[in-house]
Amino acid sequence: MTEVFVIAQGGGPTAVINQTLAGAVLEARRQFPGCAVLGARYGVRGVRKGDFADLAAISEPELMRIAATPGAALGSTRDKPDAAYCSEVLAGLRRAKATSFIYIGGNDTAGTQLILREAAGRDIAFTHAPKTIDNDLVENDHTPGFISAAQFVASAFLSIDLDFRALPGIYIGIVMGRHAGFLTAAAAGWQRDSSEAPHLVYVPERPFSVERLKADIAQVFGKHGRCIVAISEGVGDEAGRPLAESLIARDRLEVDAHGNTQLSGGDLGLALQERLKDWFPGKRARVDTFGYLPRGYIGEINPLDQREAFAAGAHAVTVCGAGGGSVALQLEGDTCRPNRVDLERIAGKTRLMPPSFLAPDSTQLSEDGRNYFKRLLPVRPMTGIRLL
Amino acid sequence: MTEVFVIAQGGGPTAVINQTLAGAVLEARRQFPGCAVLGARYGVRGVRKGDFADLAAISEPELMRIAATPGAALGSTRDKPDAAYCSEVLAGLRRAKATSFIYIGGNDTAGTQLILREAAGRDIAFTHAPKTIDNDLVENDHTPGFISAAQFVASAFLSIDLDFRALPGIYIGIVMGRHAGFLTAAAAGWQRDSSEAPHLVYVPERPFSVERLKADIAQVFGKHGRCIVAISEGVGDEAGRPLAESLIARDRLEVDAHGNTQLSGGDLGLALQERLKDWFPGKRARVDTFGYLPRGYIGEINPLDQREAFAAGAHAVTVCGAGGGSVALQLEGDTCRPNRVDLERIAGKTRLMPPSFLAPDSTQLSEDGRNYFKRLLPVRPMTGIRLL
Repeated sequence: MTEVFVIAQGGGPTAVINQTLAGAVLEARRQFPGCAVLGARYGVRGVRKGDFADLAAISEPELMRIAATPGAALGSTRDKPDAAYCSEVLAGLRRAKATSFIYIGGNDTAGTQLILREAAGRDIAFTHAPKTIDNDLVENDHTPGFISAAQFVASAFLSIDLDFRALPGIYIGIVMGRHAGFLTAAAAGWQRDSSEAPHLVYVPERPFSVERLKADIAQVFGKHGRCIVAISEGVGDEAGRPLAESLIARDRLEVDAHGNTQLSGGDLGLALQERLKDWFPGKRARVDTFGYLPRGYIGEINPLDQREAFAAGAHAVTVCGAGGGSVALQLEGDTCRPNRVDLERIAGKTRLMPPSFLAPDSTQLSEDGRNYFKRLLPVRPMTGIRLL
Repeated sequence: MTEVFVIAQGGGPTAVINQTLAGAVLEARRQFPGCAVLGARYGVRGVRKGDFADLAAISEPELMRIAATPGAALGSTRDKPDAAYCSEVLAGLRRAKATSFIYIGGNDTAGTQLILREAAGRDIAFTHAPKTIDNDLVENDHTPGFISAAQFVASAFLSIDLDFRALPGIYIGIVMGRHAGFLTAAAAGWQRDSSEAPHLVYVPERPFSVERLKADIAQVFGKHGRCIVAISEGVGDEAGRPLAESLIARDRLEVDAHGNTQLSGGDLGLALQERLKDWFPGKRARVDTFGYLPRGYIGEINPLDQREAFAAGAHAVTVCGAGGGSVALQLEGDTCRPNRVDLERIAGKTRLMPPSFLAPDSTQLSEDGRNYFKRLLPVRPMTGIRLL
């Protein structure tokens, strides 16, 4: 029987998700010469529609160029298939005579594979290969895509710190992350001591209060003459109410075309900018929302991230040979290796940043947290001696 | 008489302003062995206060490390001195026994040098060395700091385009630039044809209309299935009214703590985000405000920009020898060289993007515009073949 691999990409693109694609394609061709490798366009949508790219026909040099390109080369989808959707996907896989389906993505993607496996039986191997800048997959030391995004955030905060040393003021950078604070904490990736940015780090794992923010900023500004803050878009108060909501509900009411007062959908950046103006009148203050910029920035593709993402894709083929499962990057000694874990271990679970990564009652990373980022981002860009 | 150089940095920091500093210090030491080189902290503030770093005492390797670091190593200032302030600065220069004052900055900085020269007479040489990510100095082909910032913007739009190919939608990136559109136009720095981002470019040099924006986005989305927009924060309508004002005044009124309705200070990003939601319901739509990120990003320091910034600083010493003036980067054949021009030619003048850089009645760069960026950013990052 000819092996037929179907490969798809799900969720938000990253700087290295195409490495995982290339790793899977090349390893499938190596282990199973003559096999078919079909790339489904736009995730499970392409499987359902039978919309495939012939990945067996693409030369290795061309695949490696695709690998080096950020974004999801096959297209992606945010669809979270329910049972009915999954049965259409399964029908698509059977029409394609798939023997293995490798789906690259986060915990939702692992969840889709689990539903499909339950519905399909044993004739198709369902494998999940990890990908997410949120770094929120359990069983993984870190996930492919995270290091590159983290490097963008670390570079940005190092750069902003240099800017604000020259022209003192207050800066808040809002970083993606609804539940897990890893990417926001990466702002401290290249911080050498507490005088360097970020002076304050707020992640969703810790309850946040606006009053505390004001006091913290005042204290840091008094000490260092500037204050650089890294804050996750997902921070919320003790009751779990998102910051955006509590900030905006309190003093910014909108009047629509019909004259009705309504609550804003919530732009955290604007709300914080207005607060800074009120709290610290006359001081230079700026809020930037990093938005999509860290996700697949072509100028910060980390080589370790590339290698690990490629290896995760290649290992997905081996996992298919073992009947399917999820690939997890796990620490063995000093380096991470891709291992097989059960899909059930990953699907639908969100890994949060360990409490030990932040010092107790502190807005700074602990030794634990620092060491984690030092391992992932060992090479800090060079900076000169200080003249101020 | 011992030569005494005073050097200061003004305005917003950039990725390469410290190259200009290092170039001036090393050239001063080369041309005038034994000279004093004083670095004024925080621009003219340091001159006024007598707050100087001894730059003659710093080794060349250390200076070159400072040169490679973004941000203004001496600190900077936004102060625009009037005649009274200038007389205090002049007194500071005389106390330091300055024979030359090199001030690195934009057209305001050149203006300060002009006021000082008028007040001082001929015993001190006043020289302006160019720096600005806005690229808005007349007489210059481009300014030190611009290429690195432009490279960040070009990288960002190339990356966003790859993201939105995978997950189609509408994206607006708001780029710094109140009067000159160069940095926003740099979004097209690596665009190969009109199917690639940015599909729409709006700069302050052209009147902007919200209705036109909606129609343009709808048209591009219909054609390409996604739409990536680059827009300057400074765009305004035919009457010169800023976009932020017209967008927000029309439908978003704020109620302050006293119940008074007031116009917002204006967050363009939020206003545009709300419009996209109204105009294209159900479509993925995102607005990011790049803010300070392109200005001195340590991950995108362009080598040509570094060399030119260094050369501009070195040439400032030669210009001091000729009695002072402004250094301008001017095109000679295929490369730019630093030349002396009169301070009067630069001070207080704003260079806008030439009309020929945009195709007539178009939202795309013209051949002229494309060639300009091709010359400044010749090496586009590699991307793979398309599978979609």
